[in-house]
Amino acid sequence: MKHIIGHKNPDTDTICSAIAYQNFLIKQNTEAQAFALGELNKETQFILDEFGVQAPKQISELPQGAEIILLDHNEEKQSIDNINDLDIVEIIDHHKIKLETDKPISIYIKPLGSSCSIIAEKYFNEVVEISQVIASILIAGIISDTLFFRSPTTTAIDKKLVEKLNEIAKISDLEKFSLEMFNAKSDLGDISTEKLIKLDYKIFNFDGDDYGIGVMETTNKNFALDKKDEILEKLKEIKKTDNLMGVFFVVIDILEEKSWTLCSGNEENELFTKLFKAEEQEGTLFVDKLVSRKKQIVPTFEKHFKQQ
Amino acid sequence: MKHIIGHKNPDTDTICSAIAYQNFLIKQNTEAQAFALGELNKETQFILDEFGVQAPKQISELPQGAEIILLDHNEEKQSIDNINDLDIVEIIDHHKIKLETDKPISIYIKPLGSSCSIIAEKYFNEVVEISQVIASILIAGIISDTLFFRSPTTTAIDKKLVEKLNEIAKISDLEKFSLEMFNAKSDLGDISTEKLIKLDYKIFNFDGDDYGIGVMETTNKNFALDKKDEILEKLKEIKKTDNLMGVFFVVIDILEEKSWTLCSGNEENELFTKLFKAEEQEGTLFVDKLVSRKKQIVPTFEKHFKQQ
Repeated sequence: MKHIIGHKNPDTDTICSAIAYQNFLIKQNTEAQAFALGELNKETQFILDEFGVQAPKQISELPQGAEIILLDHNEEKQSIDNINDLDIVEIIDHHKIKLETDKPISIYIKPLGSSCSIIAEKYFNEVVEISQVIASILIAGIISDTLFFRSPTTTAIDKKLVEKLNEIAKISDLEKFSLEMFNAKSDLGDISTEKLIKLDYKIFNFDGDDYGIGVMETTNKNFALDKKDEILEKLKEIKKTDNLMGVFFVVIDILEEKSWTLCSGNEENELFTKLFKAEEQEGTLFVDKLVSRKKQIVPTFEKHFKQQ
Repeated sequence: MKHIIGHKNPDTDTICSAIAYQNFLIKQNTEAQAFALGELNKETQFILDEFGVQAPKQISELPQGAEIILLDHNEEKQSIDNINDLDIVEIIDHHKIKLETDKPISIYIKPLGSSCSIIAEKYFNEVVEISQVIASILIAGIISDTLFFRSPTTTAIDKKLVEKLNEIAKISDLEKFSLEMFNAKSDLGDISTEKLIKLDYKIFNFDGDDYGIGVMETTNKNFALDKKDEILEKLKEIKKTDNLMGVFFVVIDILEEKSWTLCSGNEENELFTKLFKAEEQEGTLFVDKLVSRKKQIVPTFEKHFKQQ
């Protein structure tokens, strides 16, 4: 049995691509099951409810020796807790790679806007039939990860795939559907401050030191900005508890394509301001058009730390 | 322009897959050219002569910023000298991975018997027409890297691909063709001892130390074994000059599926004997069925050094 695993703090793309790849493998007579490394966010839950798809089982470990397929990630730190006891047999991803294996395995990475784009391409290339439900959740994954083509990670292929998938999915108004998705994502109810910061949060190693970067993609930025002081307090706490060199929380308005960042300390504030030419705005660091952790924020940090 | 680059000490699979992928990309209107990082071996030269294919241009560096595609390797040490000045845009390989990139790139790795198998699959999957010449050199690459299906790296897919490719290539007697290939490879003329050792030679890092492992796949083992004393002398010299912890030279009879190994010192002799249950045979270390550096020799060393 192949266990298909998305990354920790699962987002819509990681969950939808894992479910779709489970379907793809089963259609090719390979036993497979998708799993989630954490609670689903409200956007993902909205999509699964909308199309009547069951959520993947939530796990944090698997039995020793289990065969796993890593979807939408390739770094150990972002994966299942006991990854070193497991047998990685395949990786499908659209991120940069940092990986060492002790035997040849299947790796398929393409610089597309989402992992759902890669799975959709596999269906089309290998001429495997796509059901209306699978086409729908693949579209949802692509829309979510590319912010409906607003993110600089978007490629022409992503757009074409959504067009082709929607011949099957027949979603009548994609713009409206994407707004419903983003609003679902923005409706965070009485979430705790720490959970808010870690909703879409990854650890990155820059030049030997670990940094935490959380992003909140939202249509309701004030949900976070109104709690600015609590968030700043919590960022300092996380920095200390998790032994990090800095923690950044980036609130991204996905419709206006602007962001407001909060940092865990003065040095981080100065660094972020310098690197992104940020403007102080009511205690936050405002940057126009800064919307992608993968394509903009992380590469800028990496370039900076490499030059030092 | 995409520069397609095989590994240093090019073998038949690296050269044939690079030429075939050049053809594949050009057919899809992408400007591409295959290059060789070193002189071709006699097997490869025999194949290119046989099918009237021009050898790729030999280079050791490319202009800064050039876009490169790594074929049949993914580790910096096995690649072009100034790799850090170049822009890796794609990797196609069938080896284990040890890689870190600073942006997402296309990576396609499959645990098949050869890189030519992966290129052949790409032609078939993406329904790109294969000419008789390209089908022929793809078959040659698969036969060479799998020792005509004798190597434990061989998969069922490799065998099927050769069958399918030969519907186009129409090589009348594959067994005879493979013998001609292996004999060409074994005919080394007045090669120097150092060149003999480094014909198919790679550096591996085990637990922080570098080791050199050369293999000679041959139908005429005595060509090397008759020069045993000169080779032993040269192994010691290479160990010293190249600052290595040990150098191994494995003479593999590809028809009988046996090997005889020479080592750069007593400690290396003892280690090799212990790890592979080798038998002393006229000053060489004989092991039955030990024929694959990738699938047998390197993993055994790695397991040993990991346990320490």
